[in-house]
Amino acid sequence: MFDVLQQELATKYDIRFDNESLLEEAFTQANYINEHPDYVGNDYQRLEFLGDAVMQQSTAVYLFKRYPEWDEGRLTELRISMVQTRSFAILSRELHLDEYVRLGRGEELSGARKRDSLLEDIWEAFIGALYLDQGSDTVMDFLEQIMFKKIDEGFYEQFVDYKSKLQELLQQKGAVTIKYAKIAEERIENNNQLFTVAVTLDGQQLGTGQGTSTKAAEKDAARQAYQRLSQEAK
Amino acid sequence: MFDVLQQELATKYDIRFDNESLLEEAFTQANYINEHPDYVGNDYQRLEFLGDAVMQQSTAVYLFKRYPEWDEGRLTELRISMVQTRSFAILSRELHLDEYVRLGRGEELSGARKRDSLLEDIWEAFIGALYLDQGSDTVMDFLEQIMFKKIDEGFYEQFVDYKSKLQELLQQKGAVTIKYAKIAEERIENNNQLFTVAVTLDGQQLGTGQGTSTKAAEKDAARQAYQRLSQEAK
Repeated sequence: MFDVLQQELATKYDIRFDNESLLEEAFTQANYINEHPDYVGNDYQRLEFLGDAVMQQSTAVYLFKRYPEWDEGRLTELRISMVQTRSFAILSRELHLDEYVRLGRGEELSGARKRDSLLEDIWEAFIGALYLDQGSDTVMDFLEQIMFKKIDEGFYEQFVDYKSKLQELLQQKGAVTIKYAKIAEERIENNNQLFTVAVTLDGQQLGTGQGTSTKAAEKDAARQAYQRLSQEAK
Repeated sequence: MFDVLQQELATKYDIRFDNESLLEEAFTQANYINEHPDYVGNDYQRLEFLGDAVMQQSTAVYLFKRYPEWDEGRLTELRISMVQTRSFAILSRELHLDEYVRLGRGEELSGARKRDSLLEDIWEAFIGALYLDQGSDTVMDFLEQIMFKKIDEGFYEQFVDYKSKLQELLQQKGAVTIKYAKIAEERIENNNQLFTVAVTLDGQQLGTGQGTSTKAAEKDAARQAYQRLSQEAK
């Protein structure tokens, strides 16, 4: 039943589960068990409990060692953007874990298989199973390949609310008026538009950003301003 | 500077830090550094970030393996009572870690050295340092001796709010009236009193408890009732 997954794990990550019943447990939802009284074993929630903690520690250890110059605020900020529902759901989909989940009929009909919250649980349960089957070092190697390398690609930026962060940073010095204004708009390939937005504080320009929607361009402008200002504040 | 601590760690736990500068970092508060510009190194907050995650995973792994029959709700409940401020502060005091902390003058005057919140941070930083210096297995062995054995002594019971838990459990079946009533009071040694309290639901007795204050006796009664009822509900 897990041949395709085992194949993919072996080819891409050099991992082979010894105990497939751990995989079975990681992909089995409680209502599936209620509907299949012949199934012997647990649902995925115990493994999810374990995998949640393993994800926290693995990510913290990696960030601590990778960024010796960062203070704990910056480490915590990046960890929060990495260890959360959407990030884990994306990893589950990347490994096609959604295809293996055994759901109760009701959950299947309500579309749970596509839901981020289920795919987050499944990711944690899968990591719990991997930890038990192969140990901590294998989990770290695996996460470096599938997850931690995404840091350098700027992947976790999308989960950071830079507009709020910029506001918080500037408000430390008292009430402020932050404004976003479109300063350019051009037509690009595939009939898309590229917007350029400037962010200003009491009329003074702090940064500019681009995106294919004004919302995306505003966020990009906030990110640029935030990163520059928080760097200068050190 | 850490001779006494190293001695205690070696005698009681067979642990010897190779890199004492990690201990120095674990015990150094930010304001101490501000007041000692000659100090080279970080304050404890990066190690605290690391140790926080190590405590979470170590405890989760231990509970997962130790209680194969428990569901994730029960595992989570015990973990929450273990991984929290008061529990960590008690461990810090047990190892006399408070004596080694290097505080800023203001914190010293305000009594930070005795404060649970500081001792929690110091415990996490110490565990982060131990993890870096000696690795994961040593951390687990150490925690089994100083912390996990306390589970069997009923130590973590004190951190559970059984009155709230009993209320939640009973309210699942609709509105309820829970009452606590003193049913006995006797004088015991050292001029103390021992109270016996009964907890009733709509007039029906659910359990009794004892304590040297009515508050403690009520909590004990709630614990007895909660444990019996949640066991029966399985």
